[in-house]
Amino acid sequence: MRVAILTHGKFPDRAKTALGILRYGDHEVVGLLDRERAGQRVTDIVPDVQDAPIVDSMADVPACDALVIGVAPIGGGFEDSWRDDVRTAIERGCDVIAGLHYFLADDDEFSQLADEYGVELRDVRNPPDDLTVADGDADEVDAQVVLTVGSDCSSGKMTTSYELRTAARKRGLDAAVVPTGQTGILISGWGIAIDRVISDFAAGAIERIVTQAGDHDVVFVEGQGALAHPAYSGVTTAILHGAQPDSLVFCHVAGNEQFGGYPSFEIPPLPEYVELYEQMAAPLGGATVDAGSLNTQGMGDEAANEAIRDFRAAIDSPATDPVRHGCDEILDAIL
Amino acid sequence: MRVAILTHGKFPDRAKTALGILRYGDHEVVGLLDRERAGQRVTDIVPDVQDAPIVDSMADVPACDALVIGVAPIGGGFEDSWRDDVRTAIERGCDVIAGLHYFLADDDEFSQLADEYGVELRDVRNPPDDLTVADGDADEVDAQVVLTVGSDCSSGKMTTSYELRTAARKRGLDAAVVPTGQTGILISGWGIAIDRVISDFAAGAIERIVTQAGDHDVVFVEGQGALAHPAYSGVTTAILHGAQPDSLVFCHVAGNEQFGGYPSFEIPPLPEYVELYEQMAAPLGGATVDAGSLNTQGMGDEAANEAIRDFRAAIDSPATDPVRHGCDEILDAIL
Repeated sequence: MRVAILTHGKFPDRAKTALGILRYGDHEVVGLLDRERAGQRVTDIVPDVQDAPIVDSMADVPACDALVIGVAPIGGGFEDSWRDDVRTAIERGCDVIAGLHYFLADDDEFSQLADEYGVELRDVRNPPDDLTVADGDADEVDAQVVLTVGSDCSSGKMTTSYELRTAARKRGLDAAVVPTGQTGILISGWGIAIDRVISDFAAGAIERIVTQAGDHDVVFVEGQGALAHPAYSGVTTAILHGAQPDSLVFCHVAGNEQFGGYPSFEIPPLPEYVELYEQMAAPLGGATVDAGSLNTQGMGDEAANEAIRDFRAAIDSPATDPVRHGCDEILDAIL
Repeated sequence: MRVAILTHGKFPDRAKTALGILRYGDHEVVGLLDRERAGQRVTDIVPDVQDAPIVDSMADVPACDALVIGVAPIGGGFEDSWRDDVRTAIERGCDVIAGLHYFLADDDEFSQLADEYGVELRDVRNPPDDLTVADGDADEVDAQVVLTVGSDCSSGKMTTSYELRTAARKRGLDAAVVPTGQTGILISGWGIAIDRVISDFAAGAIERIVTQAGDHDVVFVEGQGALAHPAYSGVTTAILHGAQPDSLVFCHVAGNEQFGGYPSFEIPPLPEYVELYEQMAAPLGGATVDAGSLNTQGMGDEAANEAIRDFRAAIDSPATDPVRHGCDEILDAIL
């Protein structure tokens, strides 16, 4: 599938969805729409992913199958400055794929235009409508279930899940990611955006997708939010208890001390944070944090390795930066 | 308002909504629809609430303003054996009020009939459509915020909240309940059914209703679910972190050892359970369990008092059964 990705003003740091597709997806990316970076190329900015030209607008990309909204602003709203590009995409016969809380299909203009041009508006955050409450039986699957958890949102849970999948496959294991957010769903082509599920059914939704993936050797469940997050801890709890994992991998961004977007909220000290995850897991299956994943992006080698050593000591488990050093240390600890 | 309440086959033990209205609501209940108890009166079965005749069907009740669906089955579905009564109610000009996940307004037959007879279908579980993620500022309200938490669903959180409200008012305080479930909303006439809110906005919804009630002296936030519950712990976490309470009151039903409906899941030992609540509260405001509420319904006085003593020791805080002994012990501990 040939796609264009929209990230206006947000690439790369606030364009997690775009980065995930560029790094782990099977799509051919024909252009990245970002007014503030137009004229550059993706690999000028992020060297280790699929390259693509960065352009001003949808009018500037070659023919493709779909436009993907590659950002996920807090609250998941649609920014009206994107409207022209979505309109152009539809008029050029492209599907439009988004993971926003605001559903494109509910937008009168887009939905009319999509009908007219025979294209599809795919809101991947829209959960199935037959979800139920959890039965509490996710621990019955054959697969080893590994859940990535973290100190905050955007702490590397999705990246770590996919890096672990790649590394486990290299070891000959039948490994899969269980996607719980819009980017993972766009990359893997299945999953449920758990933050969009109504609260009562959130654990049940996780139970369902873990069970669906249960015939693999090992599954890496993509965690969401964080257990001490001021807004998203309920989602994190539903995933932890719905998945009933065998192991937790704790993800953190080196140096982060406050919650992103919540500067008055301190991230708890990591040893206490790890304990909190284990205490919450204890009543339902009892997973422990068996390894850690530290994002040291942008640091020099020496500083990064020192940060990893400190992180290992803080969480009292093997840990590494899977992007910098590969996943062996983590896999050895959890398999 | 004159209402009839439907509980077919579920009164009293599985009709929490009906009991709440009979005990704390301002409505005049003209009849309870329960085929299995028809011919009896409410106070033959539950002596300490508003009395009403129990009848077979909607055809047997005197004129009234509304029919309330007084049960909340697991999953929140509509049972087709209730259809005749709802139809009759609409045809008699009654509004129909329900707290189900299944919205009456989405039912083609009911919605057409309601239009025809000019009555309203009120689905109180339907949350506002302008909810947002939490800002983390619920702790800025002037009111003292007390959250009832519990060992399980149906452990007395709503009852304790309303009993504490009544007792605090008797002490001259301006007290209110912040309703988070369908029964509380039916009793108080406002609130948000938090289990129906999409996960991302659950903490934000709680923050909103706590802030709305923030000008009272003290507010009792009605908790939901339980922190170690296999299906609903995400809802509980969102309430705990969204409300940022000053005090927790821990509710339990004497003798319960497994989660209701989940017989293979043991309720954690109470001392550990209380610790878990405090550990989860710590990163966001840091509330402690300052008192306990034990439901000893059906026990003799001596056995009840022994159970209360054991419960106090287990949770290491003052505790009582507010229905049996009043709320003074709890109020003294938290005010």
